[in-house]
Amino acid sequence: MASQKPSIPKGTRDFGPVEMTKRNYIFDTIREVFTNYGFAPIETPAMENLSTLMGKYGEEGDKLLFKILNSGDYLKKADETLLSQKESTRLTTQISEKGLRYDLTVPFARFVVQHQHEISFPFKRFQIQSVWRADRPQKGRYREFYQCDADIVGSNSLMNETELIQIIEDVFHRLGIPTLVKINNRKILAGIAEILDASDKLTDITVAIDKLDKIGYEKVKQELSVKGLSNDQVMKLDPILKLEGSNLQKLHAIEQVLMQSETGLKGVRETQLLFELLQTAEVHIPVELDLTLARGLNYYTGSIIEVKAKDIDMGSICGGGRYDDLTGIFGLPDVSGVGISFGAERIFDVLEHLDLYPQTVNESTKVMFTNFGEKEQLFCLKIAKLIRQKGIRTEIFPDSVKMKKQMNYADQKNIPFVAIVGTNEMEQQKITLKNMNSGEQELLSIEEFMSKISQPLLIKK
Amino acid sequence: MASQKPSIPKGTRDFGPVEMTKRNYIFDTIREVFTNYGFAPIETPAMENLSTLMGKYGEEGDKLLFKILNSGDYLKKADETLLSQKESTRLTTQISEKGLRYDLTVPFARFVVQHQHEISFPFKRFQIQSVWRADRPQKGRYREFYQCDADIVGSNSLMNETELIQIIEDVFHRLGIPTLVKINNRKILAGIAEILDASDKLTDITVAIDKLDKIGYEKVKQELSVKGLSNDQVMKLDPILKLEGSNLQKLHAIEQVLMQSETGLKGVRETQLLFELLQTAEVHIPVELDLTLARGLNYYTGSIIEVKAKDIDMGSICGGGRYDDLTGIFGLPDVSGVGISFGAERIFDVLEHLDLYPQTVNESTKVMFTNFGEKEQLFCLKIAKLIRQKGIRTEIFPDSVKMKKQMNYADQKNIPFVAIVGTNEMEQQKITLKNMNSGEQELLSIEEFMSKISQPLLIKK
Repeated sequence: MASQKPSIPKGTRDFGPVEMTKRNYIFDTIREVFTNYGFAPIETPAMENLSTLMGKYGEEGDKLLFKILNSGDYLKKADETLLSQKESTRLTTQISEKGLRYDLTVPFARFVVQHQHEISFPFKRFQIQSVWRADRPQKGRYREFYQCDADIVGSNSLMNETELIQIIEDVFHRLGIPTLVKINNRKILAGIAEILDASDKLTDITVAIDKLDKIGYEKVKQELSVKGLSNDQVMKLDPILKLEGSNLQKLHAIEQVLMQSETGLKGVRETQLLFELLQTAEVHIPVELDLTLARGLNYYTGSIIEVKAKDIDMGSICGGGRYDDLTGIFGLPDVSGVGISFGAERIFDVLEHLDLYPQTVNESTKVMFTNFGEKEQLFCLKIAKLIRQKGIRTEIFPDSVKMKKQMNYADQKNIPFVAIVGTNEMEQQKITLKNMNSGEQELLSIEEFMSKISQPLLIKK
Repeated sequence: MASQKPSIPKGTRDFGPVEMTKRNYIFDTIREVFTNYGFAPIETPAMENLSTLMGKYGEEGDKLLFKILNSGDYLKKADETLLSQKESTRLTTQISEKGLRYDLTVPFARFVVQHQHEISFPFKRFQIQSVWRADRPQKGRYREFYQCDADIVGSNSLMNETELIQIIEDVFHRLGIPTLVKINNRKILAGIAEILDASDKLTDITVAIDKLDKIGYEKVKQELSVKGLSNDQVMKLDPILKLEGSNLQKLHAIEQVLMQSETGLKGVRETQLLFELLQTAEVHIPVELDLTLARGLNYYTGSIIEVKAKDIDMGSICGGGRYDDLTGIFGLPDVSGVGISFGAERIFDVLEHLDLYPQTVNESTKVMFTNFGEKEQLFCLKIAKLIRQKGIRTEIFPDSVKMKKQMNYADQKNIPFVAIVGTNEMEQQKITLKNMNSGEQELLSIEEFMSKISQPLLIKK
């Protein structure tokens, strides 16, 4: 076969050792915090039945699902008319019954329903896996990327929202990223629309409010008129548009507006209680009520959470909320869930940009033995074994090639120590240890070498 | 939409928390040993271009690849004749240009060639990722499963084989699985066929030798005759069929037979040197020369390695070998590679069967606080925060429901300690700590509680 120039599908990526170590640092941090709060790991298959996935992400989402061609003679039962008319869309489900997961939430809902009798509720699970979307690839948008989700299902308590925000605080504290948490409640938004007698205009209203900072009070009012709100309706919205003060002051103002909406007042009370819980839990990162926060509006039914990195324009790096009936579609109604999802790709970019990776992510092998030939490599094998038993990462250069090549290898792999063993060293039963940072070399006894190599590296930033 | 009974594609699996923890124990062990020998992690995309995958696993392999349907109007450019004649196989590449990876070796070869200028050789990488095969699912055979591979490319040295066998020893020592390593060398097999002037019958010969234990010396000779070997040829094979003694004795006998085969003698010398290196490295697990070992015969060009668990009939739990020109197909010839792959699924089964999981894999949350209401949960939030800061996994039951339900939850989740905080405890600023194993309860001050909960659990097996 002729040789081919290798490439990978657009929108996908290879991760080399350096990127992997950085990514694992992020995943390990998130995983550690999740488990510290009692969340347990699960994994679901990359492929789900298309019937599980279709219709869950809207019409656009259906198109963005990667579909797997059925195995074997997949055209056998396909409709001939559809084939001859090249009806791609309608043919799809006849030749494909599986798709790659699009997110972790729908597979999780499916998991909960399928395993409901093995699960003890409330079920706290986390899941760190890839998802796939046939989106147009662009900067920062990939067709394969990781999601890191934590959800609790089977509990209505606001303790869960509290815990998720504590998790957000812990994760970003450990990563060293200064963040701002914004929260909202779908019930407040619904209440506002209800009071205005404009439940159908919920999206228009939140979009308009969202522009307050940019276009100002008067223009927002104009926009709301254009969207069909009467003067009277816009007047009622006035206190909302002029919200200011602390979170509790804002909530108080909203409460006054929503006096006639049972749903709205419920949203206010939930949010008040959440702030109280966060205060007790001594959450120190800023948490701010933001009525314009409407992510996944058609999806969430209660709290909505979004996290932004301060001092860097990167969009949301974590988000989530409460959905009251996610498992209903799979036959298990009235199970409330609340969850958050960390955006690993953006967190990676933030850490790169702010240069926040700890020195340890650059460490791979601690000591490499040079290879001067068969006798020397036998000597090194014995010493290397002793060091590895102490859990110290050790390599022996496998080939007896030029010293320069061996040193280059150590250098490029960022190995801090090279142990040089030649005829002289072997005769004296000693090892020359070269510090690759300082360039210093020392002739050491095996005991001295072992002791030196066992010391922790000085962390330099 | 009507609710649907949830299920997953056949041959795939969900992993719940208990399985996940056990699987992670296996992956973590393997990953730790790999890094201890200086192997660095990489990841490749789940989807590769079909041109990368097709033709690499034989005709049967091509059929077992999961293919991804192209996005959008995938039928637009499809050949109308193929469509009307329902030519599934020939149509495939017209409507699909991506497939799911089938193993980690081909994507690795593609990675090495694509990134050859960023890599410093010899390149030691490990990769722990899922692979997908459209195989008929059966007991122990899945359509999605993990592979754990370590390979070195760009070095011909037998130090690499030595290191891989040391890795095998370390991994199974840590996991507590008694194992037997079998090794062979493709060059010895080729030499035997050469001496017999029957290079085309290499497979027949190894298959026949493989039956020696089962059907005996005479029947094997009969079988070889049936396969077309002359009496003279079978005679020459005699010393091979009667091999016995230590590895070195066997090698000596083989050497006598192969005196006229340059390739064969090369294989003998390589194997002798490998045994010498293993002895110096003080490898204690049994390593046995086995001429019948022919896994991946058309693939490997030098050493062949296979590992079996002792005392349990489970087939191979790890295997590998050397391939001299894997990257040639992607345009980079003459780069030798050698690698091993751990079979995580079978290792999982062996650990289950021999009950070898350490107690720690069952630990999730260490302490759960009960929830008796809003005041109590505020009290618990503060204490829980202090404990989590010590890295102790802690939960607060989120809902103020019946005590029995809360205790059941702790019980099912295998949580060893429950902290009970009611009105009495709050008044006294104390906590009742219940040991879920012994059933004992103690009323403790917050300091006593903190100290007690910080002690390591006694490990019981």
